[in-house]
Amino acid sequence: MELEESGYGERALKLLRRYGASIYDRVRVRCRNGLVLEGVLLPRPGVGNVNALVIKLDNGYNVGVDAGNVVGLEVMEKHMPAPLVELRMPPISAKLPKVYFVGTGGTIASRVDYKTGAVYPFFTAEEIYSMIPELEDVALIKAETLFNIFSEDMTPKRWEMIARKVVEVFEREEPKGVVIAHGTDTMGYSAAALAFALRDLPGPVVFVGAQRSSDRPSTDAVLNVMAAVTTCIKAPFGESVVVMHGSISDDYCLVHRGVRVRKCHTSRRDAFRSINDLPLAIIKTPGEFKLLNKRFIPRSSDGLRFVGGFDDKVALVKFYPGMGKDIVDFLVDKGYHGIVIEGTGLGHVAKPLVPAVKRAVEEGVAVVIASQCLWGRVNMNVYRRGVELLQAGAIPAEDMIPETAYVKLCWVLARTRDLKEVRRLMLTNVANELYSRTEHRTYPPVLPPGVGG
Amino acid sequence: MELEESGYGERALKLLRRYGASIYDRVRVRCRNGLVLEGVLLPRPGVGNVNALVIKLDNGYNVGVDAGNVVGLEVMEKHMPAPLVELRMPPISAKLPKVYFVGTGGTIASRVDYKTGAVYPFFTAEEIYSMIPELEDVALIKAETLFNIFSEDMTPKRWEMIARKVVEVFEREEPKGVVIAHGTDTMGYSAAALAFALRDLPGPVVFVGAQRSSDRPSTDAVLNVMAAVTTCIKAPFGESVVVMHGSISDDYCLVHRGVRVRKCHTSRRDAFRSINDLPLAIIKTPGEFKLLNKRFIPRSSDGLRFVGGFDDKVALVKFYPGMGKDIVDFLVDKGYHGIVIEGTGLGHVAKPLVPAVKRAVEEGVAVVIASQCLWGRVNMNVYRRGVELLQAGAIPAEDMIPETAYVKLCWVLARTRDLKEVRRLMLTNVANELYSRTEHRTYPPVLPPGVGG
Repeated sequence: MELEESGYGERALKLLRRYGASIYDRVRVRCRNGLVLEGVLLPRPGVGNVNALVIKLDNGYNVGVDAGNVVGLEVMEKHMPAPLVELRMPPISAKLPKVYFVGTGGTIASRVDYKTGAVYPFFTAEEIYSMIPELEDVALIKAETLFNIFSEDMTPKRWEMIARKVVEVFEREEPKGVVIAHGTDTMGYSAAALAFALRDLPGPVVFVGAQRSSDRPSTDAVLNVMAAVTTCIKAPFGESVVVMHGSISDDYCLVHRGVRVRKCHTSRRDAFRSINDLPLAIIKTPGEFKLLNKRFIPRSSDGLRFVGGFDDKVALVKFYPGMGKDIVDFLVDKGYHGIVIEGTGLGHVAKPLVPAVKRAVEEGVAVVIASQCLWGRVNMNVYRRGVELLQAGAIPAEDMIPETAYVKLCWVLARTRDLKEVRRLMLTNVANELYSRTEHRTYPPVLPPGVGG
Repeated sequence: MELEESGYGERALKLLRRYGASIYDRVRVRCRNGLVLEGVLLPRPGVGNVNALVIKLDNGYNVGVDAGNVVGLEVMEKHMPAPLVELRMPPISAKLPKVYFVGTGGTIASRVDYKTGAVYPFFTAEEIYSMIPELEDVALIKAETLFNIFSEDMTPKRWEMIARKVVEVFEREEPKGVVIAHGTDTMGYSAAALAFALRDLPGPVVFVGAQRSSDRPSTDAVLNVMAAVTTCIKAPFGESVVVMHGSISDDYCLVHRGVRVRKCHTSRRDAFRSINDLPLAIIKTPGEFKLLNKRFIPRSSDGLRFVGGFDDKVALVKFYPGMGKDIVDFLVDKGYHGIVIEGTGLGHVAKPLVPAVKRAVEEGVAVVIASQCLWGRVNMNVYRRGVELLQAGAIPAEDMIPETAYVKLCWVLARTRDLKEVRRLMLTNVANELYSRTEHRTYPPVLPPGVGG
């Protein structure tokens, strides 16, 4: 691997060049505080200080040293090729339920892989068993890496790739469920995409991620992966879901429906929450699966169908006070096929946007109105502005969160561009993304627990 | 008032034209079911079925009749000028603490005003005392209407008008506090704007609204207005805040800091919640005020200062997977001065947006990155994409919600266009919108109360 592709920042690169060090060299590093570290120089993982050298010590631990704290560096041996710690593939009974992992990137897979030289490591069955030996008695795990990207680089095209991979895996391997290891940032969008693209799933598609990378002692990856495997084996449903921590302690995980889930915290382990829906299930202790929600699509034996494809000429636009009509006009001029507007309250935008919406619809562009409130339901029959928008041809997102409305519109527009049919499909429930009665129990108390009592 | 401006829909207008009826005429309406209604035809309020005629009966009640149910209509008397119910101004002791109301529109003021002919009624002291007679012993209320708009039509220019009005009112009337009656849809944005625009407030500026209009028996307006008055009189702080229901029962209201509040439900009374901050106070029974948050800016006697002005060439853009660089490029080409991007997670966007951000900054456009998670804090030093964005010149919004980051950027850019100074101001705490330590207690439990126990 070239130094330039190793992921290090400018200061670290300068230091490494000065001492003629390359990635996978065995190096001895002298630190300002007198400490001397010896081990193999690894590429920089996606996480953390880009100017901290990562050294794999002989005891197997990785340590980071900021380039500014290095006062001397010696190359002991060039290009160490061999793995320092051999991962073992334990003997697994073929009678155990099979769970198939598909890696797509993200923090959950962000360990440095010093064997292959890949900057972003992949997800192998060996690695999963090595991380969670308890799984040896629980599941026959198979794994493959589809791609390795930051989840903010996910696209509608990649949603389709994941969906097609799930179809292939269910047909070829007949697992109890498929786990998708995915970056948390856009995991909710991808989980919604698969809910629309796949019909008659024989088992759950479980998106799982981590807020802390899996080579850190504080990682949430272990519990999340165990709960994901439990969900694959025990869930009665065949839906696309997200499994993540339900609290900041390592005490339970929740299963959220893909079309109803949202990442609501930048860093907490319990960042994911169901909006306008109850979580599907809770997993309190490994292997114990408790259903929380009576509404689900059961596992099907009718034959999995791919009904996917996503139009990538769709935009999600948030309304803000003072917004003019220029962004909507621009999207129509650029040939976008659909626009989801995150309006205010029950589904409103400023007056100048009404004619812009009208023009968009007249030119065949689908316009859907969701609410930036997130909780609740768009209702455009209450206030005059809503009525004006309906008259202009806007389609209400009902109780869909804006993110799900965006994914659904991408999916609908890949099937039809006829606006009447687009409206019909957007207002027809496909994967429990639309309820006729709003689920109120999931709006959390406004007063924090223990405050104001 | 012309029929065309009366707010009625096409079917109702056609009916009224056919019978030669005008707004404020005394009419007799024969309904399909045999019922005959006699009263004054009122303009259509912003709320409800635009084709339902609103008739003020002699007993003071308003009734609505859909045009489709009208089989006959007779004009009894043209243009009734006199009010049908006289509102009384009770005798109020001049010794009571003074509270000044400024009306800007919204549901809280959405009753039909048959006296003046205004389509959107205003907020008078008589009306407030008539709605809540208990206030006669509590406060000397004065009121005026600044404007009457749907809050989605609020703009940075109007934020400045409200701020200047508050300065004028504090200087002229010396009230204990000023209440701003405001539509709920964009109330959070306006409350944040006044927090940035006003310094050394002698008392609180209290935004108040209603999720149900005040002429409905289920209205939340009464409790909200009482709590707003209590806050004006009893609060130790001089900050811009929002006072709304804290639960769906009529049992208490919460005071939220303007720069930290967000409407999070389309229809519930407890739609407003503090994000990344505790509510400032709770009002459980009328007149009882309990502080919940030790961090506040006290009332000042140094002389209120207007440090306002808002740049209206600023955009708030939400990132979504699949988003290209075209919207950011367009905004730069159009001469926008600033862009707040609602990124994912800790503050990320897709790779193609990095050069677009770089170009924007090179052309002097301020780019701020907030998180669509809403809770938590942007941290762009953890993952490589964040580092790339920082290197491109993006400014992190830290623990500000995207809406507050947008309002603050409008305010900052009205003061300076120098990007170094913009960065410094964006990262400097002005009104408790930035904390160095993230307030975690306000992230609500993911598991709904009573579920999964």
